[in-house]
Amino acid sequence: MKGANVSALTLNDVTRIAAAGRSAAEETGTAMNIAIVDAGGHLLHFTRMDDAWLGSVDLALKKAKTSVLFSMPSATLSGISQPGGPVYGIEHSNGGLISFGGGLPIVDADGRTVGTVGVSGGTVDQDVHVAGAAARAY
Amino acid sequence: MKGANVSALTLNDVTRIAAAGRSAAEETGTAMNIAIVDAGGHLLHFTRMDDAWLGSVDLALKKAKTSVLFSMPSATLSGISQPGGPVYGIEHSNGGLISFGGGLPIVDADGRTVGTVGVSGGTVDQDVHVAGAAARAY
Amino acid sequence: MKGANVSALTLNDVTRIAAAGRSAAEETGTAMNIAIVDAGGHLLHFTRMDDAWLGSVDLALKKAKTSVLFSMPSATLSGISQPGGPVYGIEHSNGGLISFGGGLPIVDADGRTVGTVGVSGGTVDQDVHVAGAAARAY
Amino acid sequence: MKGANVSALTLNDVTRIAAAGRSAAEETGTAMNIAIVDAGGHLLHFTRMDDAWLGSVDLALKKAKTSVLFSMPSATLSGISQPGGPVYGIEHSNGGLISFGGGLPIVDADGRTVGTVGVSGGTVDQDVHVAGAAARAY
Repeated sequence: MKGANVSALTLNDVTRIAAAGRSAAEETGTAMNIAIVDAGGHLLHFTRMDDAWLGSVDLALKKAKTSVLFSMPSATLSGISQPGGPVYGIEHSNGGLISFGGGLPIVDADGRTVGTVGVSGGTVDQDVHVAGAAARAY
Repeated sequence: MKGANVSALTLNDVTRIAAAGRSAAEETGTAMNIAIVDAGGHLLHFTRMDDAWLGSVDLALKKAKTSVLFSMPSATLSGISQPGGPVYGIEHSNGGLISFGGGLPIVDADGRTVGTVGVSGGTVDQDVHVAGAAARAY
Repeated sequence: MKGANVSALTLNDVTRIAAAGRSAAEETGTAMNIAIVDAGGHLLHFTRMDDAWLGSVDLALKKAKTSVLFSMPSATLSGISQPGGPVYGIEHSNGGLISFGGGLPIVDADGRTVGTVGVSGGTVDQDVHVAGAAARAY
Repeated sequence: MKGANVSALTLNDVTRIAAAGRSAAEETGTAMNIAIVDAGGHLLHFTRMDDAWLGSVDLALKKAKTSVLFSMPSATLSGISQPGGPVYGIEHSNGGLISFGGGLPIVDADGRTVGTVGVSGGTVDQDVHVAGAAARAY
């Protein structure tokens, strides 16, 4: 039997994506946590850089999860999940979502989401920057 | 094998810290819950004063957890986690965070966070006051 | 409003119970975790002795919870929760129960359970011994 | 403030440990998941090899957690957690433990546990072999 466990992202891909994220994080001078999940939301890779916040481990994991569950950047939820917004409180679903930036789809040449990356450890802008560098390395 | 369970805070330290918190709480005339965790977020001590709110038990525990996961006072998150703020909804991570005051790092002479204290039961100002009295007793 | 938060166990009682447990643990030469909960299962007190296993923190808490939820020693479940037993798998309820020894009721003069103590850190026999010393100090 | 987030295992250490585990897994011809946590049980690194079982992701994570919480190989629990054993059902604590082999302490020159590795994907013997190769690379 094959199939359920096959990810379009190979270990080689994931290693390259994580390294690109790590390089970008080092350029920003900030200790980051980097999580990569497959198209089903299951963990493929995790890196914690020296002295990164313990609390950012779960943030990186949840940003990746949030991004894959809706095939969109986690930040896309931030506008619509505010008080009065159409999906206010959506973070309570799926065992906890994170609706701010730092979770980004990894997209293949056909525009298909093959996984996502979640980054946490800096400012949200820094996290988004590092996640973008990682996702583009695919 | 040794080590994984060793906390920089000894039982003697923790007893003194908790007693200082309790004294400060008694001075405010408010029944408090006081939690102390180690640098990895694992529980070291808990005290519930007579008639303290049941709901404050978990608040004290989560304030201590929040503070240790980011090596900062829990109140530091309160400004940036508001609606429209950069980390709005961060409380949904790590099994639940509390982003208002009452969680404070316990810092050694080298400026290293060796644990945190979380206090709940009074107003937020009272909780912060009691947490400060406790943390300074180290 | 009064009432929901009132425990029959006062802070003075709890301090005495915890100290008795700690003394008994020191006599055994084993680092223990000691948890005390009220008749509603809400945490009143927790002590971690130096170098006690991190994994025993939750065991002590869950033994106290198990004991109070059924007003019986946690070990009472151990016989009947074995494979083929009448309540096999009961540990899956209530967010996780622990069915071996170390959780004991704290009983008043009228035979009423006013709280429980949960102890973990040594052998099960040692845990039960320490929990008994604690519970009898009420 | 510094300290709460500092792990004795650096990113360089962790990269070497993970690579050693991956090499050993490749020699066995089995797709493995490899998790590394710090002395407080917080995730440092995760690698999933191509086609490794999805269900083994959590097994690797929980084996690492189990090992660090008790500063012992996860397999040490397997004998005593069987039906009729003294800690039957211990797996229900701490958000879920795994009591069979594949979780091993990473020990420094002083015999101190500085983290653990959890491996899942092959037979238990294979998992233990790979975890050992990883842990010894520190």
